[in-house]
Amino acid sequence: MTISLYQSSVPIFVQFLTSLSAVLDKAAAYAEAKKVEPSVLLNTRLAPDMFPLVRQVRMATDHAVNACGRLAGVDMPSFSNSEATIPELKDRITKTIDFIKSLKPAQIDGNEDKEIKITFPSGATREFTGQSLLLNNSLPNFYFHCTTAYDILRHCGLELGKRDFMGTPVQL
Amino acid sequence: MTISLYQSSVPIFVQFLTSLSAVLDKAAAYAEAKKVEPSVLLNTRLAPDMFPLVRQVRMATDHAVNACGRLAGVDMPSFSNSEATIPELKDRITKTIDFIKSLKPAQIDGNEDKEIKITFPSGATREFTGQSLLLNNSLPNFYFHCTTAYDILRHCGLELGKRDFMGTPVQL
Repeated sequence: MTISLYQSSVPIFVQFLTSLSAVLDKAAAYAEAKKVEPSVLLNTRLAPDMFPLVRQVRMATDHAVNACGRLAGVDMPSFSNSEATIPELKDRITKTIDFIKSLKPAQIDGNEDKEIKITFPSGATREFTGQSLLLNNSLPNFYFHCTTAYDILRHCGLELGKRDFMGTPVQL
Repeated sequence: MTISLYQSSVPIFVQFLTSLSAVLDKAAAYAEAKKVEPSVLLNTRLAPDMFPLVRQVRMATDHAVNACGRLAGVDMPSFSNSEATIPELKDRITKTIDFIKSLKPAQIDGNEDKEIKITFPSGATREFTGQSLLLNNSLPNFYFHCTTAYDILRHCGLELGKRDFMGTPVQL
């Protein structure tokens, strides 16, 4: 027995994107209860040179889409990157979940050693295998942005617990 | 090809524990430069009911030790849980890395379906397979605490970048 690349990626991203979406519901409810604009929360950052919540959510979806799309070698959905409200962010999360759930295990499994070359906006390139892309890059980055989104909202005063971050494991 | 449980755990924990230790070095240098007590940083939290930095670091090591120890089915090192300085936390990280690096792939691989029952301090129990323990519980929790440690220090003003979080992949 070993772990499949599919099981290490799709159900995990779905679990934590679903919990992230639910955390955004709690952010919307908090904003309404406190009579603050949701945009105040979405533009909160933990340090002046860190991304605000809205970008943390976008980047979490990017890492999920890019990891699964590159592993499967299929066209990836593109987003406007102008999402500025909680409903728009939740819609982006939904589209991300729909995309990665549309991928079959056979499209992802077996690509552990696949060479994947990524060109960054700066022009720099980096080469991965399917396995190193997922384990050393995509998952840590994905968790980084999901956690920081949670941390920003905790810092804003939302009553959230670790269970809100963890969500519920998904069987796919 | 599939991913091995060992490759999904030991080298990943070592990579991010090593970067966490290096981030603590930067925290020590920052405290010295700003002439603040390191304990001020270690006791900073993002919300009154979140754990401070010192506990985030301890919990990151706990998730790494517990995941690898339970997968391998070996005795795990115990810590004093009284570490209160940066050198003490770094020593705990070093001991964690030494422990998980001492485990051989053959001790971890093949335990994907192993039944692992965990009894929490509250008395509650939860059952996992080796795979679900690692993918759905240990890794997300580990990344949560590593990220929150980083976020706390960024919030304190440290000049850190994503590279400090990511560290360097480890070949084991």
